[in-house]
Amino acid sequence: MGRIAYINGRYLPQNQATVHIEDRGYNFADGVYEVIAVHNGALVDEEPHIVRLRRSLNELKIDWPVTENAFRFLMREIIRRNGLREGMIYLQITRGVAPRDHAFPKDSQSSLMMTTRRSKPFNADEIAKGVRVITIPDIRWKRNDIKSISLLGNVLGKQQAREAGAYEAWMFDENGDVTEGTSSNAWIVSKEGELVTRQLSNAILSGITRLTVLKLAEEKGIKFVERAFSIEETQSAKEAFLTSTTSFVKPIVQIDDKQVADGKAGPLCRALLDRYGSYMDEDISSP
Amino acid sequence: MGRIAYINGRYLPQNQATVHIEDRGYNFADGVYEVIAVHNGALVDEEPHIVRLRRSLNELKIDWPVTENAFRFLMREIIRRNGLREGMIYLQITRGVAPRDHAFPKDSQSSLMMTTRRSKPFNADEIAKGVRVITIPDIRWKRNDIKSISLLGNVLGKQQAREAGAYEAWMFDENGDVTEGTSSNAWIVSKEGELVTRQLSNAILSGITRLTVLKLAEEKGIKFVERAFSIEETQSAKEAFLTSTTSFVKPIVQIDDKQVADGKAGPLCRALLDRYGSYMDEDISSP
Repeated sequence: MGRIAYINGRYLPQNQATVHIEDRGYNFADGVYEVIAVHNGALVDEEPHIVRLRRSLNELKIDWPVTENAFRFLMREIIRRNGLREGMIYLQITRGVAPRDHAFPKDSQSSLMMTTRRSKPFNADEIAKGVRVITIPDIRWKRNDIKSISLLGNVLGKQQAREAGAYEAWMFDENGDVTEGTSSNAWIVSKEGELVTRQLSNAILSGITRLTVLKLAEEKGIKFVERAFSIEETQSAKEAFLTSTTSFVKPIVQIDDKQVADGKAGPLCRALLDRYGSYMDEDISSP
Repeated sequence: MGRIAYINGRYLPQNQATVHIEDRGYNFADGVYEVIAVHNGALVDEEPHIVRLRRSLNELKIDWPVTENAFRFLMREIIRRNGLREGMIYLQITRGVAPRDHAFPKDSQSSLMMTTRRSKPFNADEIAKGVRVITIPDIRWKRNDIKSISLLGNVLGKQQAREAGAYEAWMFDENGDVTEGTSSNAWIVSKEGELVTRQLSNAILSGITRLTVLKLAEEKGIKFVERAFSIEETQSAKEAFLTSTTSFVKPIVQIDDKQVADGKAGPLCRALLDRYGSYMDEDISSP
């Protein structure tokens, strides 16, 4: 069965789903998106994804394309129509179609598209295989807190990682501090044993998996701090890992050419990954 | 007669021209564009536009969608099919359609779209009417030398200008120096009478009208310098103006709440505008 996409009120075979060439998402990157995991046919962390989407739309003054209630229904319907059990929804909202002009059009109708993707069921042993990251300067704009489709800087960074044979690139700011990965948040366990991830600001996206992992760490009584950490500090770190909706909690065993600790997935990372797996079983949306 | 758009090998009524929802231009702003003026049915400054487009594509490692020769033909054909005499071509090239993944796909085919827009014939008296600009922090990424469609920062800046009742926003860097406008280059005539525009770097786009105006200034023996200038320096400037493909050479008579000199279009700006008008009559592409 081919996949079904939703685009502006219609369900279509995905290979036939199109948008107008003057959609502002296509001419100006004037839009936002979310990627939401689906587990056992239900949405994972639906509420925080909606909250973040609402914030992104507000920051850009883009109207909801449909009511929030209709939106929740559409997400369930695209899961149902695709018979999706394990995988994710990708959804994108743009400011809609208008004659090309940088400033906001007066009366465009926001565009909404949704697609799905299947994946293998969550397998902690598989995810726990350590990966390598490289470090690169963060050349992106100054509003990375908005989950916009203006992703060219992220694309170039991810490509650099790919060409270096690495899983991800960690970007660093003008102080040499890590901001985040090109599609994930960055974490270390410091040499003092403290769990560290960068504090929220305009420099990073508030990752939903990041938020959930912080919550799970707190529940488990794991000491953590939200602060900047430098590339240099990563070299003495006991552990390093990344979080994202599609990578979950993934250990990093090498940063550039430097091995992290003993080069194996760390125990704290593994504990959080396992806890995240059980969290997904518990904390799912209503069908 | 409705307008005709070109999209990936087809000429279509513009309102029916679409791209796939997984075009990387739509999901990642992974593409570049050009706006080329058309005067008397011919392209203005075709060569430098092609040179810049080639550079943008090279920097992003996006393949030409067709050969450069075919590309030149297609530009002429879209002019012909639209019966365009005065106006402009908008053209956009993206990395093409591929399942969503930040890194470059292995085998996507670049997408090419072209549209046209009519405008009133060049009228120096009309263009010479002075406008106001506001100044805002430059929040964009660090590769503004690439003419990419990753334009959300420019969009937000232009919208700020619109809401302030201004024509354009001049963006300033962390030193308080003007980088450029959201869709134009920035110029002043300093209090010493020197024509000034910022030097090329990753911070600004190499505007084609900027290049042409520099060339025309040189031919006329007008002394100029390419260097950064601050918002503060604009306050003592004798003249201020902006250049772009669609605004030509446009005087600025107010910057934020501060009048520029006597609040009228300056003589050097007007001379360059008039010279630009005659340049367009002379320096046009072969049909």
